[in-house]
Amino acid sequence: MTSNMLIAQSGGPSMVINRSLVGAVLTARADRRVGRIYGARHGIQGILDGRYVDLRAENRANLMAVAATPSSALGSVRRKPTPEDCAAIFRALQRLGVRWFFYIGGNDSAETVHIIDREAQRAGCELACFHIPKTIDNDLRSNDHTPGFGSAAKFVACAVLGDDLDNRALGGVKIDVVMGRHAGFLTAAAALARRRPGDGPHLIYLPERPFDLDRFVADVQAAVKRHGRCVVAVSEGIADRDGTPIVAKFLQETDAHGNVQLSGSGALGDLLADAVRAKAGIKRVRADTFGYLQRSFPGVVSATDAAEAWQAGVQAVRTALAGRLRSGSIAILRKAGARYGVRFAPVPLAAVARETRHMPPAFINRAGNDVTAAFLAYARPLVGPLPPVAHLRGT
Amino acid sequence: MTSNMLIAQSGGPSMVINRSLVGAVLTARADRRVGRIYGARHGIQGILDGRYVDLRAENRANLMAVAATPSSALGSVRRKPTPEDCAAIFRALQRLGVRWFFYIGGNDSAETVHIIDREAQRAGCELACFHIPKTIDNDLRSNDHTPGFGSAAKFVACAVLGDDLDNRALGGVKIDVVMGRHAGFLTAAAALARRRPGDGPHLIYLPERPFDLDRFVADVQAAVKRHGRCVVAVSEGIADRDGTPIVAKFLQETDAHGNVQLSGSGALGDLLADAVRAKAGIKRVRADTFGYLQRSFPGVVSATDAAEAWQAGVQAVRTALAGRLRSGSIAILRKAGARYGVRFAPVPLAAVARETRHMPPAFINRAGNDVTAAFLAYARPLVGPLPPVAHLRGT
Repeated sequence: MTSNMLIAQSGGPSMVINRSLVGAVLTARADRRVGRIYGARHGIQGILDGRYVDLRAENRANLMAVAATPSSALGSVRRKPTPEDCAAIFRALQRLGVRWFFYIGGNDSAETVHIIDREAQRAGCELACFHIPKTIDNDLRSNDHTPGFGSAAKFVACAVLGDDLDNRALGGVKIDVVMGRHAGFLTAAAALARRRPGDGPHLIYLPERPFDLDRFVADVQAAVKRHGRCVVAVSEGIADRDGTPIVAKFLQETDAHGNVQLSGSGALGDLLADAVRAKAGIKRVRADTFGYLQRSFPGVVSATDAAEAWQAGVQAVRTALAGRLRSGSIAILRKAGARYGVRFAPVPLAAVARETRHMPPAFINRAGNDVTAAFLAYARPLVGPLPPVAHLRGT
Repeated sequence: MTSNMLIAQSGGPSMVINRSLVGAVLTARADRRVGRIYGARHGIQGILDGRYVDLRAENRANLMAVAATPSSALGSVRRKPTPEDCAAIFRALQRLGVRWFFYIGGNDSAETVHIIDREAQRAGCELACFHIPKTIDNDLRSNDHTPGFGSAAKFVACAVLGDDLDNRALGGVKIDVVMGRHAGFLTAAAALARRRPGDGPHLIYLPERPFDLDRFVADVQAAVKRHGRCVVAVSEGIADRDGTPIVAKFLQETDAHGNVQLSGSGALGDLLADAVRAKAGIKRVRADTFGYLQRSFPGVVSATDAAEAWQAGVQAVRTALAGRLRSGSIAILRKAGARYGVRFAPVPLAAVARETRHMPPAFINRAGNDVTAAFLAYARPLVGPLPPVAHLRGT
């Protein structure tokens, strides 16, 4: 006697979200209790629209190739289910004979699973609801870190490493804007680019500390005085003392529609570059916004991240099939000890849903413009080795 | 009896400019006619300031590691020498006993070499002046292509490949702004990302064709109608019928200083995204400006580009030492035939200096919003294979 399962992807894509998908699917395919395996297109939207992929029909070689492909192979969505959505979803899943529901995503996606689980219980619907963690922002509570972060952090570290070499050649000030609305982990990873004293990034600004434009300009001037140049990593989500995003303050002045959008816009970088030009009188100032490349650039993958993303999918299916829990999320916890290692543990959906985790204070320096050695020790094993670079003597 | 040589790097860094440097240096070190090998810091600025590196003192292993490092290991500069500069340069080179002068860079750097060569002849100064080609823009005349282009094109193709997968997952319109002030080669390379019908980029805009904002919005609407989404690659240098850069038109309206700067700013992408949002009524529109990552991202190197950059350095030194030519540039020419191959040929400095080469009309489609099969055939061997991607059936 078998039951069917359904799996879907939600929220922002990542470099390794397909590894979680394929890890889960291949684990389910090897288990005799699992019948059909539905992949819903574009998260819960696919359930509402009746758009599915038969994940038993895929051959193993193609699944392995999909696992190594960036972005969300099933498509994604950002949708919070209403009670009506939930009712429609239960009807659809009942029709399909689905007993196990898996949803791969971040804290918003965990909230979706939490809502569906709660509504299913209310409706007396027998549905196991499991969340598989994914977020490049690394901001899921109850986790040491999340699948997707290590690879995105590797992209950021590589990009800043190359950009620092570029800045070293032509000088001036370079501002790199990194993804991260409320959590600074990804921006902080820029610090991994440093190899020698004097290497950039020379300054790092995170959403966890209030951002002051004059203080920033003074910091840049001091760095230029010291190093003859300055590379800055700044989170797109930096905000002032009142919690208003810096870019929102700026856009409110220029955009009549009041649209505030952090990613997919170069506004923050340009604003900061203009400030350095105008207030510090520095001529060569450039800003780059790394944008969507951070989560989708093919080939830039952390081996640790890839393996853990796979395991998160495997563990979710195993936990669900074991049947002791009706619902949950699979958390990644770091083992104690000098050598890096993790274990996977089921946690209640409420423990990861909605709210974001921030950088702990011990990871941020006192001045609020850099990270600490504790952060570097935390992040290094997640990202793995970076490409080697060499310098001529005396340069 | 030996003479000394001096080598320097100029203009924008690239992924492989250090390969040309090290190829030239190791060739010179193996030749008994060459005495001291000076590396000037930051191009001709280093000669004017007396800042040199002893390139005989470097061990081979470190030189090989430098060759594989992005950016310009000696530092770079953007400076056109005045007659006074030239006189000061000759005095400095005479003091150092330099008979061979090598300068790695693009068309502006070739002009620098051209000026120094001309002034040296006037001054009766015995100095061999050679230019080693480098430009990610691929816009040097008399060349089939230039060192640096293949690797930057690989970055662009990889970035758009990943970004297209990302856009496939969440939909909407994505605009990617690619470097290229007057020549569209690098933007055109985005087309290499396509694997299957319907893959992005769905539209490509180059500086070689006049850009019309309304036409662009209509193109995007048509692509969204056809594909349900749209990925656009657009060159930072796109201009209107009068040759005015689109971003300059925009900045003139908003920036009282009238500063027009194409790279290191997200302004063009944001302008185009706003236009699509406002005029086409499409909600999810994002823009990324690839910026300096295109020329400095560690690890993204075309093997062909790397080998040719090295050879360009080798050939420059060999040509100079042969002594038949007083000055010149080393051009890369493509051999006829189905199988890709190149030869290196010395050309006069006047043949590469200053003016830029544009995309030939045969590489651009009639509508002016895409490239042709001829361009793809041209570019593919320069870039080499891209990372594999796979899709689930029916997606």
